[in-house]
Amino acid sequence: MRLTSDDFRAYFAAGNKAVNGWCCIPSMVTAEIVARSGFDMLTVDMQHGLIDYQVALAMLQAMSASPAPKFVRIPWNEPGIAMKMLDAGATGIVCPMVNTPDQARALVSATRYAPLGTRSYGPTRAGSLHPDYVARSGGLVQVFAMIETAQALAHRDAIMQVEGLSGVYVGPADLGLSLGHEPTLQPDAPEVLEAIGAILTSARQAGLMAGIHCGSGAMVANMLHQGFDFASLSTDTGMFTRALAASLAEARTRPETT
Amino acid sequence: MRLTSDDFRAYFAAGNKAVNGWCCIPSMVTAEIVARSGFDMLTVDMQHGLIDYQVALAMLQAMSASPAPKFVRIPWNEPGIAMKMLDAGATGIVCPMVNTPDQARALVSATRYAPLGTRSYGPTRAGSLHPDYVARSGGLVQVFAMIETAQALAHRDAIMQVEGLSGVYVGPADLGLSLGHEPTLQPDAPEVLEAIGAILTSARQAGLMAGIHCGSGAMVANMLHQGFDFASLSTDTGMFTRALAASLAEARTRPETT
Amino acid sequence: MRLTSDDFRAYFAAGNKAVNGWCCIPSMVTAEIVARSGFDMLTVDMQHGLIDYQVALAMLQAMSASPAPKFVRIPWNEPGIAMKMLDAGATGIVCPMVNTPDQARALVSATRYAPLGTRSYGPTRAGSLHPDYVARSGGLVQVFAMIETAQALAHRDAIMQVEGLSGVYVGPADLGLSLGHEPTLQPDAPEVLEAIGAILTSARQAGLMAGIHCGSGAMVANMLHQGFDFASLSTDTGMFTRALAASLAEARTRPETT
Amino acid sequence: MRLTSDDFRAYFAAGNKAVNGWCCIPSMVTAEIVARSGFDMLTVDMQHGLIDYQVALAMLQAMSASPAPKFVRIPWNEPGIAMKMLDAGATGIVCPMVNTPDQARALVSATRYAPLGTRSYGPTRAGSLHPDYVARSGGLVQVFAMIETAQALAHRDAIMQVEGLSGVYVGPADLGLSLGHEPTLQPDAPEVLEAIGAILTSARQAGLMAGIHCGSGAMVANMLHQGFDFASLSTDTGMFTRALAASLAEARTRPETT
Amino acid sequence: MRLTSDDFRAYFAAGNKAVNGWCCIPSMVTAEIVARSGFDMLTVDMQHGLIDYQVALAMLQAMSASPAPKFVRIPWNEPGIAMKMLDAGATGIVCPMVNTPDQARALVSATRYAPLGTRSYGPTRAGSLHPDYVARSGGLVQVFAMIETAQALAHRDAIMQVEGLSGVYVGPADLGLSLGHEPTLQPDAPEVLEAIGAILTSARQAGLMAGIHCGSGAMVANMLHQGFDFASLSTDTGMFTRALAASLAEARTRPETT
Amino acid sequence: MRLTSDDFRAYFAAGNKAVNGWCCIPSMVTAEIVARSGFDMLTVDMQHGLIDYQVALAMLQAMSASPAPKFVRIPWNEPGIAMKMLDAGATGIVCPMVNTPDQARALVSATRYAPLGTRSYGPTRAGSLHPDYVARSGGLVQVFAMIETAQALAHRDAIMQVEGLSGVYVGPADLGLSLGHEPTLQPDAPEVLEAIGAILTSARQAGLMAGIHCGSGAMVANMLHQGFDFASLSTDTGMFTRALAASLAEARTRPETT
Ligand SMILES: [Mg+2]
Ligand SMILES: [Mg+2]
Ligand SMILES: [Mg+2]
Ligand SMILES: [Mg+2]
Ligand SMILES: [Mg+2]
Ligand SMILES: [Mg+2]
Repeated sequence: MRLTSDDFRAYFAAGNKAVNGWCCIPSMVTAEIVARSGFDMLTVDMQHGLIDYQVALAMLQAMSASPAPKFVRIPWNEPGIAMKMLDAGATGIVCPMVNTPDQARALVSATRYAPLGTRSYGPTRAGSLHPDYVARSGGLVQVFAMIETAQALAHRDAIMQVEGLSGVYVGPADLGLSLGHEPTLQPDAPEVLEAIGAILTSARQAGLMAGIHCGSGAMVANMLHQGFDFASLSTDTGMFTRALAASLAEARTRPETT
Repeated sequence: MRLTSDDFRAYFAAGNKAVNGWCCIPSMVTAEIVARSGFDMLTVDMQHGLIDYQVALAMLQAMSASPAPKFVRIPWNEPGIAMKMLDAGATGIVCPMVNTPDQARALVSATRYAPLGTRSYGPTRAGSLHPDYVARSGGLVQVFAMIETAQALAHRDAIMQVEGLSGVYVGPADLGLSLGHEPTLQPDAPEVLEAIGAILTSARQAGLMAGIHCGSGAMVANMLHQGFDFASLSTDTGMFTRALAASLAEARTRPETT
Repeated sequence: MRLTSDDFRAYFAAGNKAVNGWCCIPSMVTAEIVARSGFDMLTVDMQHGLIDYQVALAMLQAMSASPAPKFVRIPWNEPGIAMKMLDAGATGIVCPMVNTPDQARALVSATRYAPLGTRSYGPTRAGSLHPDYVARSGGLVQVFAMIETAQALAHRDAIMQVEGLSGVYVGPADLGLSLGHEPTLQPDAPEVLEAIGAILTSARQAGLMAGIHCGSGAMVANMLHQGFDFASLSTDTGMFTRALAASLAEARTRPETT
Repeated sequence: MRLTSDDFRAYFAAGNKAVNGWCCIPSMVTAEIVARSGFDMLTVDMQHGLIDYQVALAMLQAMSASPAPKFVRIPWNEPGIAMKMLDAGATGIVCPMVNTPDQARALVSATRYAPLGTRSYGPTRAGSLHPDYVARSGGLVQVFAMIETAQALAHRDAIMQVEGLSGVYVGPADLGLSLGHEPTLQPDAPEVLEAIGAILTSARQAGLMAGIHCGSGAMVANMLHQGFDFASLSTDTGMFTRALAASLAEARTRPETT
Repeated sequence: MRLTSDDFRAYFAAGNKAVNGWCCIPSMVTAEIVARSGFDMLTVDMQHGLIDYQVALAMLQAMSASPAPKFVRIPWNEPGIAMKMLDAGATGIVCPMVNTPDQARALVSATRYAPLGTRSYGPTRAGSLHPDYVARSGGLVQVFAMIETAQALAHRDAIMQVEGLSGVYVGPADLGLSLGHEPTLQPDAPEVLEAIGAILTSARQAGLMAGIHCGSGAMVANMLHQGFDFASLSTDTGMFTRALAASLAEARTRPETT
Repeated sequence: MRLTSDDFRAYFAAGNKAVNGWCCIPSMVTAEIVARSGFDMLTVDMQHGLIDYQVALAMLQAMSASPAPKFVRIPWNEPGIAMKMLDAGATGIVCPMVNTPDQARALVSATRYAPLGTRSYGPTRAGSLHPDYVARSGGLVQVFAMIETAQALAHRDAIMQVEGLSGVYVGPADLGLSLGHEPTLQPDAPEVLEAIGAILTSARQAGLMAGIHCGSGAMVANMLHQGFDFASLSTDTGMFTRALAASLAEARTRPETT
């Protein structure tokens, strides 16, 4: 079964897993390379990625090369940019730092049409990608709240009760930082690992999907095995930097004598 | 000894070697990442890179993060773009497909001020980077002709006699293609390897520097060992694509049980 | 009488009507085409248009081809972007989703200099377009609040009492959606039409100007006839899409035999 | 049968016709709208379109929304830009003003790999779109020479003998201008119509495909009926301008009384 | 002693003064010219400058040509953009219109990592510029609150007590406007001058650094003499406009007879 | 009398003089500032300016703020770019390094419609700026050949006989360099000054207009007084750099004691 925007919930409901390609480089060219690399879903990161609206739109367009669902992590829980990214054709929104039920309600309000929310009508690009967009947007649009602070951890069950959320997304580095540890995408502090497990358990109980940010392919594999629905392979900048370093090191090696 | 634009010839005359970072992605962000990765010299590829003038200029600016010499491979042996890239601050020009002495003379004419050439005066950015630019440009600006066809191979000694060339740059893939082989940056056809060796020998005899395009760190190491002054690690798109594939494959692996 | 930024209020006070050109395509080229098409006023839509700040600025510059007043619909009622667009030279701001008097006061605060508001001083481009800008900005700058939800409809008279508003602008699609109808720019539900009429009546009583968003030339004509001061012909994307479809259909027709 | 890059020649050999969408606006957004409008093939016009390399690349990426073959009209018969556009992923090149067999040979040389031509190896984006690109490029890449001057008309049969051309493309406006008539995309001068017919006849005799530039859907229909394989609906700027004018005129009409 | 990001506080603690180059033009080229002009520190103005995120990032990159600390004035006190600019590599944030201690706390929260604030982890570019970035960011990152309204003036001492602020920055034009005077960067109203002095005195008492916005070199000299740590020379648009006018006036003069 | 594209020749025929604003910075914002500064004519420099096609187009659009004629200096005597800039709306072309009558004929061929030249039809933007463009383009479009080498100096009279040239433009720095002097825009070598005078005299005899590149307002005034029709004040980068340096020097001065 192939993951698409139309079958997003069904795909995970059937027990499938997904690897999410994560883009921080503000470039259509790298976005297309990521899109053609075989990821199940794709995300443009407008928070920590070096990417603003106009480039994000262009990247979403370049990602047409793949049928995978396109997500955007918005820079902050602010209605203007959330609505703009949905109008631009993203079918998934990841919102950072959703720490309270009120913040979750604000997120839902900005991303759902009436009567559930107050999203403004005008799906300029989205409407051309998805026939019958407005009527179907309730099922088509996925809204993920990031649970990534001690405060959010404490409020996680109440947050997950907010109607209109599709799921939660764990940010291990911020979560660790908030709990007093070094921020890292390869967490090993027991407190952080337990918190991650607790969030996943709560999501399962609330009937929500759950994703997580990962710093390596190995962590992705582990998190999917642990039960997350999808896990993100981040970041493009990091993979590029490490690939350059490895090739350069090889180039500086003395060649084998023959 | 650190390679700089000011000491470019002296560096190689002293027997030092250089690894050249090669940029095909039209992005200031990836250009800066390459520039910060520790390469000895840097090249923006306007021929096969997905890069036009305005982005190339921006990339040269972003590469200010490194003191390494900045080269540009121009898209074709055309005086307008050669002059524009030098004015934009490149201190090295790599010109594709220089197949005859006349073509080499045209290249020199476009890249050298009178009396050697006919480069037009107006070093808008270059003059702000290099004090006393015009007077020093004869030594500061490096002009490399690509020897990458059967025709160029046949004419190589005459080409290398053209006054004003700094050196030659070998394109193994085009050279192989022109000689009737598969185009590859990992050549192993004896005819191609011999041709590469012959070009290097001719360059040594002519007192010119010699560089070569490589598809892997291992080939860079081999070519430097074989005697080339510098070798390019290409391409950023390729390294990025392969790094994504490797991480994605790792992500799709079943995690180890513990 | 020609509509200009200087005579904006006088033009409508004299009973003149205006057709507003509406731009959603992020392009200087299409913006200039719209500007040269003969509209009385022009708007760059940063809410549902695929347009962010830097492109909006460029579009305003390209629209210098026309003397018509230039408006911007901001993406949300947020002071940062409202002030930036005014500094960029827009003389009119349309703000979506102004649902309460408090929201209207916030809008006025962001768009009016002291003592009426708290707009920050620094009209970088605006000051070069309009001599004596700060002193004249009270009359030169037009601030329109969108009345486009059931909540706004209920509060419309209180909203219109907020000092500093120039007028109101009706969004029929969002208004319909909020009232439980299909969102459309060609509304025919009696409840929506009555709401539109009620907003216009309130504006007349409050002495405010009134504009409305329309999905066709015919609706523009009807709304102007009904009493609105100006009506917008939206959208450029829609008109372009329909023009392509019509020409393509014609192209696919069997030609007439002669 | 659907027209694709892979089956380009077979499609027309089977007697199918194609309508070509033609883009002059430098915008990914309008390019995607055109791509989604149902054209059989798509062209980015770098000659008279307001489009340079970097935007053309972005437009080709945005056009991934459609499986239709993507062509580029290059600004001039210059090898650098021809090769860059092929590397960028265009599978068709339309070259203006090919007036002599020598010019046709130069065009083929720049667009075909050895041994037929001298195109330089480095299909940075093309290679990621089309598996086994280099080996297949002889059949995949289409090269069209524009026959659009009196000189080209006189030399048409010799031009069409040049090995490596896929076909010819008629520019009626330039052809008319060169023959002493008003330049128009709706030609009716008998001399121009006869010249168009003569070019088509020659193409049929030479076994080449033939396309033509048209200024309206009606002319497209007529030219396809007359025997051309494909015809272009140009231009997007013109269609947009006319659509705006028509809607604005409607908006300025007095509404019907009810 | 040279001012750098690493020694920012020590530089001023030692009694040194700094002139701040101020960029409002959205251009990498002018940003690099400013960066090479010898200023002690540099600021990209996203509030009144004609600059949005993507261009600001590019300007920060182009400013790598200088080792001077790079600041950004954000458009408004909004966490999303503050965090994005820090991730983009700015080591200083100037925030407009900080009028209350609560607003100052919000600013600190957005710009400081836990436990002092809630800045989200992900220093994509910053981390590549500054080794050990997160651990050192408390000392590396400078946060300046603008004191530029009557309200802020009244609350200045309480604002300056907010832990995490590095200093205050005075906006004389807005301060004057708020106090009922003409907005000007060359203030001479005694009330405004006294307010400026009072802010400086409070900053000294609170142990904070203090900077000020100036409209001329003479005012910079005066303000540094008066005790400010740094003063900004603004704006690039103004200096450019005046330089053009002066040269044009000279050009229109009758030349001297000889 | 105001200089416009329509009256370009008449203006100078009546003995009027013009100061030409010259843009090297790739920015719509600085282009608009220059356009609003009161110059009689405006030029975008694509040769030594840091400007490529897409930015040049945008700058021409931003220059709509002024009714002054818009010229472009193309990067080289190449038909593709000459035609593109005319289609983009420039009414004047300055071509560098026209050294022989053949080169002048090639320039005319690329910039004049048949029968005088071979410019291709498709004035996408130009046609929307100038009604009846094609019929009027002979008088509307100005073509200037740069006389700036020893070779051109020797051939100047033959060059000026080429039908279709509007005038000549002197490049003093290249001319000096070619004659063996330091390249400078403030020439004082007698040989260079005599060469400039000789070119002007030849232009007068040939009935052509004559312009000259100048490095200061004083030189503009002198050259106009000497008889040139127009003189360019260059460059924007230089004026900006010098203005920054002067203000910074003032800022570093000890303030006067009071
Ligand atoms: Mg996080
Ligand atoms: Mg090659
Ligand atoms: Mg609305
Ligand atoms: Mg043509
Ligand atoms: Mg202020
Ligand atoms: Mg010159």
